[in-house]
Amino acid sequence: MGHDILITHIKGLAQVREPSISFLAGSAMAELPVLADAYLHISNGRIAGYGKMETLPSILADEVIDATGRFVLPSFVDSHTHLVFAASREEEFVMKIKGATYVEIAAQGGGILNSAKKLQQSSEDELTEKTIQRANEIIRLGTGAVEIKSGYGLTVKDELKMLRVARRIGKETPLTVKTTFLGAHAVPSGIKKPDYIKQVIEEMIPAVAAERLADYIDVFCEEGFFSADETEQIVEEGKKHGMKPRIHANQLHRSGGVQVGVKTNAISVDHLENIGDEEIQLLKGKKTMPTALPGAAFFLNLPFPPARKMLDVGLPIAIASDYNPGSSPTGNMQVMVSLACIKMKLTPEEAFNAATINTAYALELSATHGSITREKTANVFITVPVPSLAYLPYHFGNQLIETVILNGQIVN
Amino acid sequence: MGHDILITHIKGLAQVREPSISFLAGSAMAELPVLADAYLHISNGRIAGYGKMETLPSILADEVIDATGRFVLPSFVDSHTHLVFAASREEEFVMKIKGATYVEIAAQGGGILNSAKKLQQSSEDELTEKTIQRANEIIRLGTGAVEIKSGYGLTVKDELKMLRVARRIGKETPLTVKTTFLGAHAVPSGIKKPDYIKQVIEEMIPAVAAERLADYIDVFCEEGFFSADETEQIVEEGKKHGMKPRIHANQLHRSGGVQVGVKTNAISVDHLENIGDEEIQLLKGKKTMPTALPGAAFFLNLPFPPARKMLDVGLPIAIASDYNPGSSPTGNMQVMVSLACIKMKLTPEEAFNAATINTAYALELSATHGSITREKTANVFITVPVPSLAYLPYHFGNQLIETVILNGQIVN
Repeated sequence: MGHDILITHIKGLAQVREPSISFLAGSAMAELPVLADAYLHISNGRIAGYGKMETLPSILADEVIDATGRFVLPSFVDSHTHLVFAASREEEFVMKIKGATYVEIAAQGGGILNSAKKLQQSSEDELTEKTIQRANEIIRLGTGAVEIKSGYGLTVKDELKMLRVARRIGKETPLTVKTTFLGAHAVPSGIKKPDYIKQVIEEMIPAVAAERLADYIDVFCEEGFFSADETEQIVEEGKKHGMKPRIHANQLHRSGGVQVGVKTNAISVDHLENIGDEEIQLLKGKKTMPTALPGAAFFLNLPFPPARKMLDVGLPIAIASDYNPGSSPTGNMQVMVSLACIKMKLTPEEAFNAATINTAYALELSATHGSITREKTANVFITVPVPSLAYLPYHFGNQLIETVILNGQIVN
Repeated sequence: MGHDILITHIKGLAQVREPSISFLAGSAMAELPVLADAYLHISNGRIAGYGKMETLPSILADEVIDATGRFVLPSFVDSHTHLVFAASREEEFVMKIKGATYVEIAAQGGGILNSAKKLQQSSEDELTEKTIQRANEIIRLGTGAVEIKSGYGLTVKDELKMLRVARRIGKETPLTVKTTFLGAHAVPSGIKKPDYIKQVIEEMIPAVAAERLADYIDVFCEEGFFSADETEQIVEEGKKHGMKPRIHANQLHRSGGVQVGVKTNAISVDHLENIGDEEIQLLKGKKTMPTALPGAAFFLNLPFPPARKMLDVGLPIAIASDYNPGSSPTGNMQVMVSLACIKMKLTPEEAFNAATINTAYALELSATHGSITREKTANVFITVPVPSLAYLPYHFGNQLIETVILNGQIVN
């Protein structure tokens, strides 16, 4: 690339970390190091240096950005999305407003199977085009790395198609992409669950692995979907094929999802609206990242995960968008940070840590993403002029990002 | 102006109304007339004509905008804001996250008196400059007309200063502005309430009226602030000086605010988180517009007003932003529409009606604002390409407005 950018007079360069920090837990999440009146030097796609303005060395930059009055943060890492889908589902949103139940919506062809039907009817190129639009939207909103799940395919062919699209997003956009095979998202109609699980295990997992399409394996562990035992069976098969587990757990019920996540050494357990003391205790000292998805809790009017209780016992917390057309139809991580503060009572520092360094850990990207650290990938955004870091979640629902730099290039 | 704009190929021209419609109530709110594949002709700052594309007459326009795939709506009318303030208060937001009570925040100089102190120290020009920035922000977000309250002055001099700034916003920006005197917002420290009420009545109201600075008068009718009797006394004095009442009612308690609003023939009663059946019955058939402020309920974690119950008995509902630095630090009406749908269970049609035609009524702007109607002020916005009107509140927290036209001029 050979491209040097120098950002000067930064009001606050936030999330400056030593490379040894891979995630933060408990009371350590309350701190977010901010360098005031700072510069940031980006070179060849990486963070080359930073410091106080008074220590700015002579740098020959191709581009100089004056960030007076502005904060610079590392790009969000969004560790849980369903970015590949064929169509939005606002018609179900309206049905829900009018009082339709989940069962009634499903009876009218709604829900995950609605998305599956539309995805099955779309070509890989059509899906790629739509997903690139969504990718560009979340890039403008500050996301630099993203996890993308399959799970609207539900056939071998369509799961592979979906994961190929996800891989293409990592090549055709500046986003860093990790992919997750979620064949066990729902049981398609016309097939019995044991038969579908057999298909997931015997056909889908080997086919996904053969093309190296998935970094992770996920299961929708929820009453009425897949039990903890079924989840264990599926993710263990995935592990044999090189896919590490990350598990949908405890959104609607105390489903045993956290237990199976810890047992199978999952990278993360995601959702946790219905996590109890037993699960919280179980997560202590484990390598599994508890991940809240505040957009889904907000949109579905569910209780939010007991974040303060989890922090108080020393757990880490990550937050991700769960961007999907049914239960969290936005990938706006600024909104997720606001919701974490307003509804989960995280401080702004805790929420930004949850959405950057901790989600980077949850995608095994700690070495390259999630903080302002020398040699890390130059994924940063510059805010509009704001009085403080806390102003960002406080001025909720507003787009407060002015400039986005990904891989050392200004993309917006 | 002599400037003609023609918008063609509009996917949906929404909120097309006959001039006789001044507001909508009950079941009538469920309908929002949308003209598909339409054009809109703007001339000399007004809506000159519209219709289906197939009926497009020959028009000599200075500017033609192709709105393929896009919706066009009348600009939002935001009937309740505190747009003039000296500083944001995110430090109190963080104190609240950490568990501080209202009393503890007040003891540290927070709350309304915090804003009053900072406003008193600011010059009219400083305040105007800051408020113009906020005005430009809400213009980009789709607002075309706005009510602005005083109430952070709390002295004769500073209340006048604040209202002069509000009037200047109406002259120095493209926003249509209505102003409200809210001297009775809080009792300043160092003065007893009866003495302050005397000052409001004997000094402030006449001074405000002498300069014609306020269209309306408001009182913070709430336990611990001003009682229903005090509210009545103050607004009756305002009425004598030509200011019509609009009343802060039932946010934190069943304060009698709705009763005094109806009794004094108020234009609107605003907040209503704690409205009961008695108040709902009382509002039936009255000219007072019940106004929900979903941003404040969301930000303060209060229950939302019982909107469905109100609609079911045939009441109208308006929604406004309550933009202010303490309890609703955003003026984003797209977010208010989303919150109304997700949290108050309004349909998208009901929510858009509540935020346009009904708020126009609440600002006595029905004749010129709030709908796509021939001869009305050409205040409209064009969305980005979206699949449906319902997509706008569903894709929550995203900026979905591409072009803003106010007074027949493209401003963004």
